[in-house]
Amino acid sequence: MCSCAGADLPRYRIQVEYDGSAYHGWQRQAGVSTVQEHLEHAATTACRTPVTVVGSGRTDTGVHAIGQVAHFDLPDDLALTSAMHRLEHSINGILPDDIAVRDLRSAPDNFHARYDARRRCYRYYVSTQWRALDRGRRVQVGASVDFERMNRAANDLQGEHNFSSFCRTQSETENRVCRVYRAHWVAEERPGDWYFVIEADRFLHGMVRAIVGTLVQIGLRKRDEDSLPEILQARDRRVAGPAAKAKGLVLYEVHYDDSTTGEPTN
Amino acid sequence: MCSCAGADLPRYRIQVEYDGSAYHGWQRQAGVSTVQEHLEHAATTACRTPVTVVGSGRTDTGVHAIGQVAHFDLPDDLALTSAMHRLEHSINGILPDDIAVRDLRSAPDNFHARYDARRRCYRYYVSTQWRALDRGRRVQVGASVDFERMNRAANDLQGEHNFSSFCRTQSETENRVCRVYRAHWVAEERPGDWYFVIEADRFLHGMVRAIVGTLVQIGLRKRDEDSLPEILQARDRRVAGPAAKAKGLVLYEVHYDDSTTGEPTN
Repeated sequence: MCSCAGADLPRYRIQVEYDGSAYHGWQRQAGVSTVQEHLEHAATTACRTPVTVVGSGRTDTGVHAIGQVAHFDLPDDLALTSAMHRLEHSINGILPDDIAVRDLRSAPDNFHARYDARRRCYRYYVSTQWRALDRGRRVQVGASVDFERMNRAANDLQGEHNFSSFCRTQSETENRVCRVYRAHWVAEERPGDWYFVIEADRFLHGMVRAIVGTLVQIGLRKRDEDSLPEILQARDRRVAGPAAKAKGLVLYEVHYDDSTTGEPTN
Repeated sequence: MCSCAGADLPRYRIQVEYDGSAYHGWQRQAGVSTVQEHLEHAATTACRTPVTVVGSGRTDTGVHAIGQVAHFDLPDDLALTSAMHRLEHSINGILPDDIAVRDLRSAPDNFHARYDARRRCYRYYVSTQWRALDRGRRVQVGASVDFERMNRAANDLQGEHNFSSFCRTQSETENRVCRVYRAHWVAEERPGDWYFVIEADRFLHGMVRAIVGTLVQIGLRKRDEDSLPEILQARDRRVAGPAAKAKGLVLYEVHYDDSTTGEPTN
C-alpha cells in the first residue's frame, strides 16, 4: 500500500535538519540529489514500505535547514513512543550525515506540513570577518557594513506588502502578498558575526536572499536607508538588489497553529 | 634574510581560525598537510620572503581553532595599518578557505605567542540531538547524559592539579601541573546543544579530550559523580575515561598579559 494514499493511514510529522551544500534543494527532481529524495529513500528503507514525504516548503540549491517540518503516512500505527524513537534512529542511520531527522511524532490525520504552516522563520548568517570554521553557512560582508542602518531600513519590511520586487519567479497569477512579523539583524557572540532573522506567514521564491542582498547594499551606503518602500511599490525584481548567496540561508523554524515549531522542544 | 633570525626584525601577531578536519594538526610535519605549513606558505608568498610562524601551541589532528594566536617576523616594517590590512587580505586570499587569519598587528620584539601565553581556553561542542549542519564540529552524546551532574563533577577540576591521568604523552620529566581557572558546561540556544569550556594556564597533550570523555561517562552514570579527585590522584592515564573525538574540540582563545586574547576585538 502506498503511503501517499491516504486519510486512513496514521500520519507522522518530523523535523529535518540539513546542510544544503551538497543538494539541489529540498524537492525531488530527476537526475539530481535532493533532500526529499534522500529522506524518502531512508524512510522507505527503514519502514519497508514506500514512503512519500511532504515538506513545509521547498528550499533552493545550497540552502540549509535546521527546522524544516515534514509529514508522511505509514501503514502501521507506531503506537508506542519507543517505536517512534526506533524508527527515527533507523532513518538517521540510513541518511547521509548532512541530513538528520528528529522529533518524530504522531500528527492528526489531517495535519499538512505545508498547508497548515502559519509562520516560517529564516535566518541569514554573515560575518564582517574572514571565517573558516563556519564557512559553509556564513557569508562574508564588507567590514564597513552598518548593521544599525540595515535595522532601521528593515523596519519597513514589517506588515503586509506585495513582495514582487523580491520574487524570482515571474508568474503573473501568484499571490505576492506576505505578512512579515519580524525582520531584523542580531549580533552574535563573536564580534563581526550577525544573522538576519525574518519571520512571515509565507515567502516567495528567492525572497529572503533578495531582501538580504538589498539590505547589505543599504548597509554599505550604496542605497538610501529609506529605499525599501519604493522598492516594494515598484513590484519589479530588477529594482531590488542582487540575491545574497545561498549558503548563508537557513530555514530555521516553522510554526503551526498548535504552537509547535520546527525547533526541538527536547 | 630568514624571518626566524631575529630580535631586530619587526614582529607581528595574528589570530588564526581553522577547520581542522582536513589537517594533521597545527604543527609542520614532513609529508602531511598541516595548518602551520599552509600559513607559512601563504605568508611567505604574500611577503615574498621566507616566513616562519610560531603558534601559541599545537593542536592535534582534526582539532579546530577559532582564536589560535601566532607571531612572525618580517624584514620590512609595515608602518601603516593599511599595509597590515593589505597583508592580512593577501594571506587570506592565498590560504585555503578552511584557514583564515585576522587582527594582524605589530607586537613587541620580544612577544612570543607560546611563551607569553598566560591562559588558554578550549571549548568542546556536543549535542544530545542528531545534528547535520554543525556535524563537522559537534559530537553527539547520549540523550540521557546529565549536564548538571557533569557540572558538579567538573568543579573538582578547578585549581592546581597534576593532570597526568589526562595526559597522552608518557614522558617522565614533563611538568604535569596545570592551573584550571574554569571548567563547566554551558547550554546553547538550541535545546540539546551544549559546550564544555575549560580555561587553564596550560594544557597537556590530549588533556581536554580525556577530561570530556571522562565527564561524559560521569554524565551517563557510568562513573561516580565524585570520581575526579581519585582519578587525578592516580596520575595514570588508564584510570581516566576514553578521549572524546577530535572534531568537537576548538581552541577558542589565548590570553596574554596585555589582556589581549585570541578573540577578535573588532
